[in-house]
Amino acid sequence: MNLIESLREIVGSSGFVAEGDAEPLLTDWRGRYRGKACAIVKPSSTVQVAQVLKLCAELGIGVVPQGGNTGLVGGATPSEAGDAVVICLARMTKIRAIDTGNDTVTVEAGCTLQQIQELAASVDRLFPLSLASEGSCQVGGNISTNAGGTAVLRYGSMRALVLGIEAVLPDGRIWDGLRGLRKDNTGYDLKQLFIGAEGTLGVVTAAVLKLFPALHSRATAWVALDSADAAIELLARCRAVCGDALTSFELMSRSQLDVVYEHVPGTRDPLDGQSPWVLLIELADPSNDAPLQAMLEDVIGAALEAGLALDAALPASAAQAAALWHIRHIVSEANVRCGISVTHDISLPISQIPRCLATTEAKLIEAGLVDGARFLYVGHVGDGNIHSIVLFPHAAWARVSDADARVDAIGKVVNGTAVQYGGSISAEHGIGRAHRAELAHYKSAVEIDMMRAVKHALDPDGRMNPGKLL
Amino acid sequence: MNLIESLREIVGSSGFVAEGDAEPLLTDWRGRYRGKACAIVKPSSTVQVAQVLKLCAELGIGVVPQGGNTGLVGGATPSEAGDAVVICLARMTKIRAIDTGNDTVTVEAGCTLQQIQELAASVDRLFPLSLASEGSCQVGGNISTNAGGTAVLRYGSMRALVLGIEAVLPDGRIWDGLRGLRKDNTGYDLKQLFIGAEGTLGVVTAAVLKLFPALHSRATAWVALDSADAAIELLARCRAVCGDALTSFELMSRSQLDVVYEHVPGTRDPLDGQSPWVLLIELADPSNDAPLQAMLEDVIGAALEAGLALDAALPASAAQAAALWHIRHIVSEANVRCGISVTHDISLPISQIPRCLATTEAKLIEAGLVDGARFLYVGHVGDGNIHSIVLFPHAAWARVSDADARVDAIGKVVNGTAVQYGGSISAEHGIGRAHRAELAHYKSAVEIDMMRAVKHALDPDGRMNPGKLL
Repeated sequence: MNLIESLREIVGSSGFVAEGDAEPLLTDWRGRYRGKACAIVKPSSTVQVAQVLKLCAELGIGVVPQGGNTGLVGGATPSEAGDAVVICLARMTKIRAIDTGNDTVTVEAGCTLQQIQELAASVDRLFPLSLASEGSCQVGGNISTNAGGTAVLRYGSMRALVLGIEAVLPDGRIWDGLRGLRKDNTGYDLKQLFIGAEGTLGVVTAAVLKLFPALHSRATAWVALDSADAAIELLARCRAVCGDALTSFELMSRSQLDVVYEHVPGTRDPLDGQSPWVLLIELADPSNDAPLQAMLEDVIGAALEAGLALDAALPASAAQAAALWHIRHIVSEANVRCGISVTHDISLPISQIPRCLATTEAKLIEAGLVDGARFLYVGHVGDGNIHSIVLFPHAAWARVSDADARVDAIGKVVNGTAVQYGGSISAEHGIGRAHRAELAHYKSAVEIDMMRAVKHALDPDGRMNPGKLL
Repeated sequence: MNLIESLREIVGSSGFVAEGDAEPLLTDWRGRYRGKACAIVKPSSTVQVAQVLKLCAELGIGVVPQGGNTGLVGGATPSEAGDAVVICLARMTKIRAIDTGNDTVTVEAGCTLQQIQELAASVDRLFPLSLASEGSCQVGGNISTNAGGTAVLRYGSMRALVLGIEAVLPDGRIWDGLRGLRKDNTGYDLKQLFIGAEGTLGVVTAAVLKLFPALHSRATAWVALDSADAAIELLARCRAVCGDALTSFELMSRSQLDVVYEHVPGTRDPLDGQSPWVLLIELADPSNDAPLQAMLEDVIGAALEAGLALDAALPASAAQAAALWHIRHIVSEANVRCGISVTHDISLPISQIPRCLATTEAKLIEAGLVDGARFLYVGHVGDGNIHSIVLFPHAAWARVSDADARVDAIGKVVNGTAVQYGGSISAEHGIGRAHRAELAHYKSAVEIDMMRAVKHALDPDGRMNPGKLL
């Protein structure tokens, strides 16, 4: 019996993706990476995943796990070689348990993030992970990429939200690590290896996730600032006054806002000034009557008096607050309309952000890499994550002769400077295919050696998501 | 040149522990584990640690890292064989950096927890880890044991408080993973392996730790309950109303309180009743005027009305609150005065706590293992960690013929039942020498295999803290 027949026997005809339906699974959603596969299967249970992996182990075939295929670094797209089996987890959508007494939910890897959010809301709880792609990204992918998003400041990234996982190892054995424990000091915390491993150590099939109290009060502010330094000082003040109620602390440069206002009809700045930087701050609390608005008015009032903030708008209604968040959420779309964005997903020690950005701009200008381009910044300053964007309006981009080399050269400056300032070249998007070569460049030899040793320990044949990460 | 001479050359005479001074470092502080060593060194820098490890690698000698020697499972005590070098980190006490803009501090492994707490307080910040041994335990040990304590409910265990580490690998290479980043998705999160590894993968020499806003408001309550179930329901209510302000949620059984009141002069119950369970709840907030007292009164008032709580005392002063915490903190001492405690450090899914405890008691009674003993419970219910204690008053213990076998048999029932209910046999104390055999019994073969593979990947000769954990 050959591979295809054996696979079809394991997953059934409904779990086998016909050639005509394969295209969306062989291309990332932005169309930047394309690949081939010797087969694509959609198992419906952990046992089926285990059988598929056992078969692939026997035949020495590579395996590419795929969740919602919403990644930005090509981590879920197989290589051009077409010598691997793609395992799509989309049919594994069971909710295995809800335990409100333990504030946990046990779910299969194919559940979408939005399903989990709605499930939590249905029992008056919050699952705090929040991403642009939440309607289609899957929990298994969120785990395998250690997903971030807008609530990391308060709740941490996916790593902090996972209590246990179930995974199938490269040889087909099932590891049941589905513990719902907040304290467990019994040896190496193996789940930590699978979180953020981008499918290179095995296939995550289920997880126990933490739930939090649902948030019933909210307050929002739009604050105009003179400098990025002021944002960092205001962050410290907000944390000291608002404590854990501080849920979002998003920084945008005026240059980024201008692109939104120019290209997205109906958007307008809530303030008249032209401050170089703007913060969008949100507080939230589980109780219905937390005095968040007063708290926010106090801290911003003091910042205005101290000259730390230039101006501020506190929306009076949920609709007004939503209009502010719309400006934040629409930045990527606005940038696409404006031109070609060379984007970087860096993170930094928060204190280093202003100096690092200034140094980077100076280097890019000096190197002559950014003629006609704009520097845009938008990011989750509260957790040190800045999306640093060099935007070439279409006319300027038309003058760039070798696009790939230019993108590469800009990336080297932006990422290299970030690393100099103690930062990371991939705060939340991961490595995948996109940054694999850079990883080896920026990590120390010792760290790469350790990563290789761990990879070899759990996937000695190197068959799990080959060509990604390492 | 022999081992001793070479070591002395590396660490200098002030870093070499003479035989006469060795005893305290070869015995755990409770005197339960004793060992021997071929040498004990106290390096003063990471480079010295690296040189020691390189030398040991060349000579094929084992290495036992030791912090404050405050552990409960013998993890820092060398074996009787005397064939290993003990590396004591006590002289590595530098504060390498304080970054209030990033809310981080970079410290060497030998700093005591209390030093870090005081350092944080000096810049109006909080380092939230809090343990009974905080005056003498060291950061390196806190990391290597993933220390827990009383603030895990809100801030997580040590794992959640470490952003980066520096470690010396078994071959003497230094891994500089001292990043101060809240988001960093660039491959396997290697620091997670060292956190909780009990020194079996290398020697942690420094770390970047997260700081939080200092807490300036506080409210405390003592709540009488009819059942452990009521505690769990009240936990959900507190979380929904108080959100992240909920800092401690400690449960004690009446049997435990009785032992305190009987054996610690000056202690008395703040309430008249004899409720079978009592909760000690604390809220805290960074702001000076957070309405915590009102919040706590509201949630407890509602619980009293609903019949969920029997009675409650809300201390009117900090001194009164301290008296309540004294009862909580003095339990171990009270138990020692009363008799012999067979203690277990289990954790459970919070929802399973009441049933697991009841089942365990029934099994212990049925097995005839607890004649004359009392069942005491004290624990951090908010994070599922219960210290389950079978206390034999001295008279009852005198009737136990084979003490070791009895302790063993009781442990099998308590831990075995915890595992049946999805729990852990070591919530925060770790494995060390004490629970090594049990670990292999309670973990699945797949998990043990994975742990061994990871160990072998990073410490192929098995020289790091031999005889511990695995």
